[in-house]
Amino acid sequence: MKVEILAITPDAEKLIEKAGRTCYLSFDKITEDSTEKFIRMLVKSGHESVLEHAYATFRISGGSRAFTHQIVRHRLCSFSQQSQRYVDEKGFEVVTPHSIEKNKEAKSLFDNFIKNAKDTYMRLQSMGIRKEDARFVLPNAVESEIVISANFREWRHVLKERCDKSAQWEIREIALEILLTLKKHAPLIFEDFEIDKVEKTVSIKKR
Amino acid sequence: MKVEILAITPDAEKLIEKAGRTCYLSFDKITEDSTEKFIRMLVKSGHESVLEHAYATFRISGGSRAFTHQIVRHRLCSFSQQSQRYVDEKGFEVVTPHSIEKNKEAKSLFDNFIKNAKDTYMRLQSMGIRKEDARFVLPNAVESEIVISANFREWRHVLKERCDKSAQWEIREIALEILLTLKKHAPLIFEDFEIDKVEKTVSIKKR
Amino acid sequence: MKVEILAITPDAEKLIEKAGRTCYLSFDKITEDSTEKFIRMLVKSGHESVLEHAYATFRISGGSRAFTHQIVRHRLCSFSQQSQRYVDEKGFEVVTPHSIEKNKEAKSLFDNFIKNAKDTYMRLQSMGIRKEDARFVLPNAVESEIVISANFREWRHVLKERCDKSAQWEIREIALEILLTLKKHAPLIFEDFEIDKVEKTVSIKKR
Amino acid sequence: MKVEILAITPDAEKLIEKAGRTCYLSFDKITEDSTEKFIRMLVKSGHESVLEHAYATFRISGGSRAFTHQIVRHRLCSFSQQSQRYVDEKGFEVVTPHSIEKNKEAKSLFDNFIKNAKDTYMRLQSMGIRKEDARFVLPNAVESEIVISANFREWRHVLKERCDKSAQWEIREIALEILLTLKKHAPLIFEDFEIDKVEKTVSIKKR
Repeated sequence: MKVEILAITPDAEKLIEKAGRTCYLSFDKITEDSTEKFIRMLVKSGHESVLEHAYATFRISGGSRAFTHQIVRHRLCSFSQQSQRYVDEKGFEVVTPHSIEKNKEAKSLFDNFIKNAKDTYMRLQSMGIRKEDARFVLPNAVESEIVISANFREWRHVLKERCDKSAQWEIREIALEILLTLKKHAPLIFEDFEIDKVEKTVSIKKR
Repeated sequence: MKVEILAITPDAEKLIEKAGRTCYLSFDKITEDSTEKFIRMLVKSGHESVLEHAYATFRISGGSRAFTHQIVRHRLCSFSQQSQRYVDEKGFEVVTPHSIEKNKEAKSLFDNFIKNAKDTYMRLQSMGIRKEDARFVLPNAVESEIVISANFREWRHVLKERCDKSAQWEIREIALEILLTLKKHAPLIFEDFEIDKVEKTVSIKKR
Repeated sequence: MKVEILAITPDAEKLIEKAGRTCYLSFDKITEDSTEKFIRMLVKSGHESVLEHAYATFRISGGSRAFTHQIVRHRLCSFSQQSQRYVDEKGFEVVTPHSIEKNKEAKSLFDNFIKNAKDTYMRLQSMGIRKEDARFVLPNAVESEIVISANFREWRHVLKERCDKSAQWEIREIALEILLTLKKHAPLIFEDFEIDKVEKTVSIKKR
Repeated sequence: MKVEILAITPDAEKLIEKAGRTCYLSFDKITEDSTEKFIRMLVKSGHESVLEHAYATFRISGGSRAFTHQIVRHRLCSFSQQSQRYVDEKGFEVVTPHSIEKNKEAKSLFDNFIKNAKDTYMRLQSMGIRKEDARFVLPNAVESEIVISANFREWRHVLKERCDKSAQWEIREIALEILLTLKKHAPLIFEDFEIDKVEKTVSIKKR
C-alpha cells in the first residue's frame, strides 16, 4: 500500500488565518506568530468551518476494494477510482490480510483461491464475456487505485473515524499514512491527533 | 432483485407546491388543480431546489456488491448497507450477469468459482480467520442488501444518470424499478422521464 | 414567529429501525418494543447515519432576515425562501428584538426608523426603481418566510448548535419550537435533548 | 467591489489529468500536451467529478448583504463571512444599485436613508442595545466581506448560474470577476464559458 500526496493548498495555515479573521475583521492582529494561537482557538472552540478553505489530494495505491467501498462512503470527499468496467484486471494484485498472511494453511488456501479467481476472470473474457461482467468474480481483495481530495475539516473528520481503534485494520493503516503526511504539511491543524505508534491508533487530545 | 418502497412523503406533490409558493408568496393561487401547472413550471425552469422537500426511501435486495459500490458514490443519498464485517456471509447469494447466464460454458465456470469462493470463505473462518478478513475472498457478485433515501431532486438526478443507456445493466435495472415506483407515487415530478420498455432505458423529455 | 410542521416521515422511528437493521441483517429481532432499545443504541454509539432515513419539513413565518441569513448556512438542509427580488415588500412586517422592545426610548427610535425604511422603499419604487434594487434599503429586521426540510440526523445537528446558550436569541427561539414539535413526533430520536424551560436552552444528555 | 484570489491548487490542470487517468489507469498516455485533450474530453462527456480535485479560494470585499444572502445558498462552497454579531458596524459602507446611482432624486433619498440607518444603529448602541440587536436596523445595502472556497466543478456550477443573464446584477458582476481570474489560472477548465463583454453575461459553448 502506498500513500502519495498529489496536491495541497500552499501556506495552508496562513490561508486559514487570513480567511478566519474575516469573521471578526481582525486582520490587524496578524503577526509572524499569530497563526498558531488563532488555529488553536478555532479548533478548541469548534469553529471548524474555517478549516474548509485548505484542501489536500492523495493517491492511494494498493488498497483493496474492501477498503475503497468503505472510504467512498465519506460524502464530503471527492474520488477518482480505477474502474473495473473499463480497466482490464487480468493482472490484478491483491491485498492479503495480516491474519491470513501469518497463518500458513490459510495463506495457501487464500493464494489458491486468488489464482482461481484470476484464471476464471481470464477464461470468462476468452469466452466472450465483457470486462464489466467478468469482474463479478473479482474478490474484495483485488487492489484498486483511488485519488481522494478533501478539505481539512473533512480530513479531520475522516481521520478521526478511521484512525480509531474500532476502525478496520486496512483503512486504519491507510488513514494513519495520510495523517502522518498532513502533520508534516499542516502541523497545527492536526496537532491534537496523537498517534499511538505501538497500537497504530489515534486519539484526539482535548485542548 | 427486489425493490421495495419503505417510506415516501405523504401528499408529496401538494407539499412541493406549498413550499415552492413561499418564494413568491403566491399561496392564493393554490386551487384543486394548480399543482400540475406549478410543478411543470418548476421543472421546466430548472427551479429544482423545491423538489428537495419530498423524500423517499427504498430497500434494494438482491443487488450485487458491484452495484452497491457504484450506488454509494451518490453523495446526496443516505445509505444503510449490510455489513460484511458484521454479518456472517456463509450463506451468500450471488447475482449472475445475463451474459454469463445464457452462455452454458461460462455459467458452469462461474458456478464452480462461486462454490469455491463460498467454500474458501467458510474454511478460512474455521481456521480462525475473522469475518472481516475472510470476506477478502468474497466476489463482486455477492448480494448485499441496502436501504437508500433521497429527496426527489436527487432521485431525479440519480435516475437520469443510472437509467441512461450508458449505465451498467444491473444498476440500470434497479434504477428502472425505482423510477416505476416513484412514477406511481409522484407522477408529475417524474412525468418527463420516458421509459423505453424494449431497450429498458429512459430519456428525459424537454418540457 | 410561527413554526408549523408541513410533513414528516410516517412511523419514522419504526422506519429507522427497519433501515438500521439492514447493516446487521437482524430483522428477526424486531418486536413490538424493540425500537426503543435499537434507537438508543444507534445514538449512543454514534451510528447516526441511520437517522438520515427520516425527514421533516417546517414552515417558519415571522422570522427576520437576520435569522434566515444564519439558518441557510446549514448546508444539509433544503430551503425555499420568500424572495425579495420577486415579492413586493411594501407591507413588510418586522421582528423587534426584546432588548429594544423593553427599552422605551430605543423602541421609539426603532419604530421611526422602520417607518422611514418602509417609506423609502415605496418612494424608490414610485421613482421607477425595481423591487430588486429598492430592497437594498430593507433592514435585517424585515420578516421573511422560509420552508426548511432536513433529515433527522441533520435536525439533531442544527438543533444542537442553535438551541445552545451561545446561539443568538431569535434562532434559538425558533430552534426550540422545532425541537418541541419533533419531540412529539419522534420522542426517542430527540429524548437526549433536555430543555431548560427557564433559560430556554438545551443540553444534550449523554446516554 | 473587489475580488481577490487567495489560493488555488498549483498546476491544477495537470493534477486533474493525473487524477482522472486513475479511472482508466492510462498514465502512459500523459505527454507534454495531453492535458488539453483530456480535460476537453472530461467536460464534453460530463465526467465532471474529476474537476473536484482542484480548488480555489476568493476574498470578496464590498459586496452587499443582499449578495451574501444569495451566495451562501451554494451548499458545496465553504464560507467565512464578516459577522454582524461580533463586528461593530458603526463605520459601515454600502453598495448603491446602479439604477439608484443614476437617478438623482432616488440617490438623494437613498443617501439620506443610509445616514438615518447609521445614526439609528449608533444611537441604539449608546442606549445599551448590543451589536447583535442593533444590527436589526442595518439594511441589505451594507457591505459584508466574505471568503469563498470551492472545487472547480462547483465553481463551474456557481458561475454558470450566476453569470447568466437572469442572475441579479450584483452577484453577476462578482461572478464575472471570479470567472476572469479562474480563466487565467485554469484556461482549459473554463474555456467553454464565453463572456459577452457588452452584456456582461456568459454563455456555455457546447464542445
